[in-house]
Amino acid sequence: MNDPLVIAGKSFQSRLFLGTGKFGNHQEMEAAIVASGSELVTMALKRIDFNDKEEDDILRYLNHDHINLLPNTSGARTADEAIFAARLAREALQTNWLKLEIHPDPRYLMPDAIETLKAAEQLVKEGFVVLPYIHADPVLCKRLEAVGVAAVMPLGAPIGSNKGLRTLDFLEIIIEQSNVPVVVDAGIGAPSHAAAALEMGADAVLVNTAIAVAQDSVQMATAFKIAVEAGRMAYNAKLGAVQQRAVASSPLTEFLMVNGE
Amino acid sequence: MNDPLVIAGKSFQSRLFLGTGKFGNHQEMEAAIVASGSELVTMALKRIDFNDKEEDDILRYLNHDHINLLPNTSGARTADEAIFAARLAREALQTNWLKLEIHPDPRYLMPDAIETLKAAEQLVKEGFVVLPYIHADPVLCKRLEAVGVAAVMPLGAPIGSNKGLRTLDFLEIIIEQSNVPVVVDAGIGAPSHAAAALEMGADAVLVNTAIAVAQDSVQMATAFKIAVEAGRMAYNAKLGAVQQRAVASSPLTEFLMVNGE
Amino acid sequence: MNDPLVIAGKSFQSRLFLGTGKFGNHQEMEAAIVASGSELVTMALKRIDFNDKEEDDILRYLNHDHINLLPNTSGARTADEAIFAARLAREALQTNWLKLEIHPDPRYLMPDAIETLKAAEQLVKEGFVVLPYIHADPVLCKRLEAVGVAAVMPLGAPIGSNKGLRTLDFLEIIIEQSNVPVVVDAGIGAPSHAAAALEMGADAVLVNTAIAVAQDSVQMATAFKIAVEAGRMAYNAKLGAVQQRAVASSPLTEFLMVNGE
Amino acid sequence: MNDPLVIAGKSFQSRLFLGTGKFGNHQEMEAAIVASGSELVTMALKRIDFNDKEEDDILRYLNHDHINLLPNTSGARTADEAIFAARLAREALQTNWLKLEIHPDPRYLMPDAIETLKAAEQLVKEGFVVLPYIHADPVLCKRLEAVGVAAVMPLGAPIGSNKGLRTLDFLEIIIEQSNVPVVVDAGIGAPSHAAAALEMGADAVLVNTAIAVAQDSVQMATAFKIAVEAGRMAYNAKLGAVQQRAVASSPLTEFLMVNGE
Repeated sequence: MNDPLVIAGKSFQSRLFLGTGKFGNHQEMEAAIVASGSELVTMALKRIDFNDKEEDDILRYLNHDHINLLPNTSGARTADEAIFAARLAREALQTNWLKLEIHPDPRYLMPDAIETLKAAEQLVKEGFVVLPYIHADPVLCKRLEAVGVAAVMPLGAPIGSNKGLRTLDFLEIIIEQSNVPVVVDAGIGAPSHAAAALEMGADAVLVNTAIAVAQDSVQMATAFKIAVEAGRMAYNAKLGAVQQRAVASSPLTEFLMVNGE
Repeated sequence: MNDPLVIAGKSFQSRLFLGTGKFGNHQEMEAAIVASGSELVTMALKRIDFNDKEEDDILRYLNHDHINLLPNTSGARTADEAIFAARLAREALQTNWLKLEIHPDPRYLMPDAIETLKAAEQLVKEGFVVLPYIHADPVLCKRLEAVGVAAVMPLGAPIGSNKGLRTLDFLEIIIEQSNVPVVVDAGIGAPSHAAAALEMGADAVLVNTAIAVAQDSVQMATAFKIAVEAGRMAYNAKLGAVQQRAVASSPLTEFLMVNGE
Repeated sequence: MNDPLVIAGKSFQSRLFLGTGKFGNHQEMEAAIVASGSELVTMALKRIDFNDKEEDDILRYLNHDHINLLPNTSGARTADEAIFAARLAREALQTNWLKLEIHPDPRYLMPDAIETLKAAEQLVKEGFVVLPYIHADPVLCKRLEAVGVAAVMPLGAPIGSNKGLRTLDFLEIIIEQSNVPVVVDAGIGAPSHAAAALEMGADAVLVNTAIAVAQDSVQMATAFKIAVEAGRMAYNAKLGAVQQRAVASSPLTEFLMVNGE
Repeated sequence: MNDPLVIAGKSFQSRLFLGTGKFGNHQEMEAAIVASGSELVTMALKRIDFNDKEEDDILRYLNHDHINLLPNTSGARTADEAIFAARLAREALQTNWLKLEIHPDPRYLMPDAIETLKAAEQLVKEGFVVLPYIHADPVLCKRLEAVGVAAVMPLGAPIGSNKGLRTLDFLEIIIEQSNVPVVVDAGIGAPSHAAAALEMGADAVLVNTAIAVAQDSVQMATAFKIAVEAGRMAYNAKLGAVQQRAVASSPLTEFLMVNGE
């Protein structure tokens, strides 16, 4: 079945985006990313080595034809910092795609609605393809859509928490109202969480911690890959409703009386 | 990876068991079962046509080499009824495998602990391979194990409810303590629920309603197939722990100061 | 409002039952029990000092006119042990009320359905007022009712876990079907959990750990007292249904146009 | 115990705020508000009859010494509308207290972070005591605090949904970080939800639908009153931690051997 995800005119076969943090080393990261089938991989601008392209440069490990880079502004605390970082990233990586992250609080890395909208508006004007990481705030999502972001990336739970879809009630509203793809970001801690996001109609998920800290990250990446496919398939096949009670079943007695002799 | 499920000495590649009720028709049921990759399929004894093997006989549609039949005693209200039905099923279907279901209440189809243990004990003595459907009751699971059942099948939620793993806290204990395979039965309403059961260490799941009532039951069966594989894979790859807060991240400022000039 | 709970013909104004374990000392226990307003207090038979009524005897601290003793068989692993203990308790404490607990597993203290039913049947015949602690198993509850127990005490979550009403879906069925009072026992870790149990129609709750291990157990006992009253009141006042979306509201614009000039 | 809630220098004995919408009639509303013990009651500006103080004016029913009015800007879709409405309200009701609500979407009444912050900043400058209704967004809460709001009012669930504390994970962070009172607003559908909010450290809750649509709204108001007290009391008394397993108990056997002879 051909059911691509399209963001800003670009088609993706995989609905699983990956982050690059917290892996044991670059080799392991590369193997997990390849196993995941992901075509969009995000990395913090601050992890890029601008001075010399030495052995240890993360970009060497992401150099695959099917992998598109999605630089992010992780660590930015204001719109200005994020915009500055975005421009640097565009120049360095030759891509105008950007995961916009602004989180003034270093403890929970919660996104800042105000600064994110401000930065998004400016960056869209500058020709960036902007995918903002935000709270699961339905009104904010519509505002970001209005200024021209390519997708919205509401969080499922606090980043790194592995708690799953704690913002379910709000994701439902966001998905119902959005005219741009909805990518659930942050909090997805297991393949079942990723499947659930797709089942409810999210267009994609971004996963990092759950894969990076797994005992076997390559196998975990594969598990996420197929869980995302399962979730999307179930979405297309349409699940039945949750029921409050079982459908009554006929008792066995009569059958036994007829056939038991 | 070779990671078979073994029940009573028999190996299964698939950890997804299917029920046969509620499908639109037998052709659709057959197609979904084949798509699911399931090797163990349960059907109610009362649905078997003993008098003549006519066109409409459900068994004609389950006649595949890789599919093993698991007759069940659905509709039985007492141990005696279930035992009687089991003997009939063994004779008719030439299998000693049995899904033991005893539910006196026709509304919620909740299993009866007392009668189920009594019937299980007798049927094991008669040489049956008994897989009892039960409440997620850790002590009852150990008792059934003690009388020789081949696996335990605790429910995840009320049958037909599609509510998922509502008995999570008890399934955890059952899985930790069990020496026979644990198959989560009833309540699994989405591929994400099936994946979650496998992730937490359940050995298999039995699904019926969620596939049978989906708009596209064949595609839904495929979704369950791969979700179960994803869940098992994640279990083997070992998920990280749920965290209460994010790991602190370094701010972008210093990086921007160094590289931004 | 007069809305007593009646068990075995005896009326209770309070729907909060208390356990006596885990308190720092007997004085603190007594103060908390008095503050809770509880009229039914359970204590393990094994904690009673049969040999001499010395200073430290727990019973001295429970000697209040409004407090009824409910000896329990905690620690019993079989019906026989429980029956033996029950007879001892009746003789020692001069009460035929009994909280029947049988849990072969010392780690999770999960109740044993089979032995509990067997013991209940015998003890009812011997004239005991039996309140069995059981899994939230709807069929077992009906069976216990059939042999004449005075109330059923399904667990809300594993004992001592403070997790709250994890068995919600099954408690709903039990409450709907029961002809004897339903007392939610085990797992209630906060006044909000107790209120929720009463709101959904449970007749009472039994609390122990949450009060005993609180930093200020007397104040916590008071909190539970009034939370239980709140829950019962809400049950009688009938809550509205959970809604999937807000009711639309009229915009302010027209009002501002009319009144703003 | 003297444990008042202080907002903008004003002390409240009650931590339950009430809304005035959806009641059957004004008499019923008044009776419920009085029963609730609430000292802060919000009403939409648009419901006030500016032209003549006739029989039906809602304000006649709120005229009690202990009740403080908290006009709200419900229906406002922009900061400008809200500011305009706020000024009207101040003039009409002779209070500078204001519940700031801006929700461009009439279906879910979700709050708008951007416009709310903008309006809050302006209204604080104009001398209003601003209590903004917002998403459970920790960063936004800190920003509002920085511009001088008197309290923050994050939502627990979609307004009118009665779903309870669905934003729990974010409320925890907000409560931990806030230097102004945190009032959980929207979604609280039962006394147990209100108790849970207070237990986790919220300073107060605002309830409307759950009381207004109850079959007996006066009794429900009383239930909320005492549930809120219970929740606060439990917060002060400090609950124990949620446990993964029971504490092991000693078996009864030895005791029976010693005492049973």
